[in-house]
Amino acid sequence: MYITGMILHPIAIADPPLRSSYGLHAPYALRTIVELKTSDGITGIAETYGGEGPLEGLEAARPHVIGMDPFQLTRLFRQLAGGGEVAADVAGGRSQTYLVPGENPLDRPNRTFAAIEVACLDIIGKAVGKPVCDLLGGRARDEVSYSAYLFYKHAGGGGLGDDAREDEFGEVLDPASTVRECRQMVDQYGFREIKLKGGVLDPDTEIATIRALREEFGAAYPLRIDPNCAWGIETSIQVGRALRQELSDGGYLEDPCATLEGMGEVRRRLLEEGNDTPLASNVAVTHFADLTTARDLDAVQIVLSDPHYWGGLRQLQALARVCEVLRMGLSMHSNSHLGVSLMAMTHAAAASPHLTYACDTHYPWQTATDEVVAGGRIQFVNGCVRIPDTPGLGVELDYDQVARGRERYEKIPFRKRDDEAEMRKHVDPNWRRILPRW
Amino acid sequence: MYITGMILHPIAIADPPLRSSYGLHAPYALRTIVELKTSDGITGIAETYGGEGPLEGLEAARPHVIGMDPFQLTRLFRQLAGGGEVAADVAGGRSQTYLVPGENPLDRPNRTFAAIEVACLDIIGKAVGKPVCDLLGGRARDEVSYSAYLFYKHAGGGGLGDDAREDEFGEVLDPASTVRECRQMVDQYGFREIKLKGGVLDPDTEIATIRALREEFGAAYPLRIDPNCAWGIETSIQVGRALRQELSDGGYLEDPCATLEGMGEVRRRLLEEGNDTPLASNVAVTHFADLTTARDLDAVQIVLSDPHYWGGLRQLQALARVCEVLRMGLSMHSNSHLGVSLMAMTHAAAASPHLTYACDTHYPWQTATDEVVAGGRIQFVNGCVRIPDTPGLGVELDYDQVARGRERYEKIPFRKRDDEAEMRKHVDPNWRRILPRW
Repeated sequence: MYITGMILHPIAIADPPLRSSYGLHAPYALRTIVELKTSDGITGIAETYGGEGPLEGLEAARPHVIGMDPFQLTRLFRQLAGGGEVAADVAGGRSQTYLVPGENPLDRPNRTFAAIEVACLDIIGKAVGKPVCDLLGGRARDEVSYSAYLFYKHAGGGGLGDDAREDEFGEVLDPASTVRECRQMVDQYGFREIKLKGGVLDPDTEIATIRALREEFGAAYPLRIDPNCAWGIETSIQVGRALRQELSDGGYLEDPCATLEGMGEVRRRLLEEGNDTPLASNVAVTHFADLTTARDLDAVQIVLSDPHYWGGLRQLQALARVCEVLRMGLSMHSNSHLGVSLMAMTHAAAASPHLTYACDTHYPWQTATDEVVAGGRIQFVNGCVRIPDTPGLGVELDYDQVARGRERYEKIPFRKRDDEAEMRKHVDPNWRRILPRW
Repeated sequence: MYITGMILHPIAIADPPLRSSYGLHAPYALRTIVELKTSDGITGIAETYGGEGPLEGLEAARPHVIGMDPFQLTRLFRQLAGGGEVAADVAGGRSQTYLVPGENPLDRPNRTFAAIEVACLDIIGKAVGKPVCDLLGGRARDEVSYSAYLFYKHAGGGGLGDDAREDEFGEVLDPASTVRECRQMVDQYGFREIKLKGGVLDPDTEIATIRALREEFGAAYPLRIDPNCAWGIETSIQVGRALRQELSDGGYLEDPCATLEGMGEVRRRLLEEGNDTPLASNVAVTHFADLTTARDLDAVQIVLSDPHYWGGLRQLQALARVCEVLRMGLSMHSNSHLGVSLMAMTHAAAASPHLTYACDTHYPWQTATDEVVAGGRIQFVNGCVRIPDTPGLGVELDYDQVARGRERYEKIPFRKRDDEAEMRKHVDPNWRRILPRW
């Protein structure tokens, strides 16, 4: 069995006006659906970052992918990494701090490989009659827990023109509306951990938001806040001090400030106060090369994995094991995505014994109108996605929906995520991302 | 497909009178051949440590193994580790320093699991039509390089009574005979790296042996010496100093003294002299829990993996990745073994991109008379074993040979490896293992 074809579907999906320290989400998020066809007539699918950059990366991989045996993934990983040893891969640090996810050129080989690997695992699963997680040593769990991913946001929904759609959450720019947003999400999906994307309002309002969430949901719902490096060291310490109680019991403080050195200082000074709120990161640690530095500085106690940019499901398993050895916790990062990515994330999480927190997902921010999975949206029960019994990822494409996504992509001007530009267009013509802002 | 039967074959194989700091090899080494049968009529095989202890471990696993889906290995790993999280597995340190391989009770769950995992991977490979290494992400190499594993030894060969057999190497108890032994082995197998098991003669003689090997074979044949902790810190430093030149260029000093603290001091003092001979270990680091300590003390620069006691092929891959992240080299430990183990080691090594040295193997010390692999001994070309195109491990059992091995096992009194007892029986009635001896 070998790969005979690779079809790339660039699609656009409506995305509400979500805010973060990066700026404002555009009315559409971009994704790429990957189909690989084999000589045995099997189709494997994957979903990854969208727009021109990721498409270029995948196109560049095409000569390596066509003709390959889908089992020979290590070889492909090396080819995409430039023909060198995988060891070269851990030699140089790289940071995501100043780049929106999916746009870090240093991660491109890993992102490209991850999409191909997922589609190959889907192929292998279908050929063998096993779910993807069981190809990776066997599942450590039958269902994967996700968190309620709260955003401050403007009113109105995603999409443009005829395609514009209100979302069900309305404007969320203060503590009370965030509690309402969370209640809607918890009621609908059953989430049992809560993440607030911060770095948007002034720190006191964000502290008040977390306190309001704790008051409403109680200690049974662990809380995490992620300002995406919007705070300086002093502000990070002040917030950590103010939220000591609220972020304990299974919560964490994610990327309060930029750089591992900064995080290390925040950690050291909080510990001096007897405050051991763990610090998590998905921007200061995006690569195996960052892990020992993070440990040596005690800068990061929880790593956010993500199969999309860590290099796929097996790399995520390796990351989980490294974190276990380094006595670090593991959670999972998310980007705007549809059901194919959700299933890849779920299989990755199911196949990684060491996963110590509910995973993040943007899934509640997307809708059935844009879902490309046949049969519609993936169901959550008690905040969890269950591994289906079906071979492979367990989902198939709805080709009409893929075609609609492609049409949308063709119609819109966006080819790259640029949250700063959106912020200038809709909120403040002079806005730019400043780190630290507070 | 599920496991319907587990057949354990305790076998004995002739072993020459090899010496190490543990004492003297008995006339027979003990192994266990494992067969798993499936509902689909597939048989998977594995080879592991022998004697009563390992058999008990495997028997205790039987209720978990019968009825299991061979893909659900993570679940079995947890069951054998006592039902806890895999995380528990890295919580406590454990050392092999004072125990012969295969007899550390703390490693038993990992050893038991490894044998089952290898047989399950053999089953899956046969079901899927792929070699084992390609089930693990795909091979990083098509052939695996092994080292010439030299021992000081007495004359005569292995076996007892009618079954006694001279070996081709004769007595090897000085530098000149070791060079001769090495020449025989290199000529026959094509090895391109050389390991001397030391800790047997006085350190000056062992230094002279390494120098004689370097003189005979030149710098193109990297040299390693492993006294199994027979030296104190001062002696370790003296040997490291004396062999600085000879152990450079791809060689290493393995377990010169006991404990990570001891190794760390040897390393620090050698570095002070500008001597960066790397230290390797398979006794101070036998478990994931040891890795961070080893790194923090800079005690070990090269870890010796071994799928038999590190918990199988996927655990070995994880170890390789952890070592890569910790900037440690990776080699592979060996014990007396036959062709089934050799193939498991070869698949493990093929599936681990980060493998920086030729693997150790005792294979030249066993003979066709005892080989249980159908078709006879595995072939080495230029010191390498090639991954066969056949699905699974790529070898099948010769059941007549297995039966002979079982008969031998029944006839002999040995049920546990005890090199000290052999030493007292044949060399010195008062001998006991003293660490450090020098």
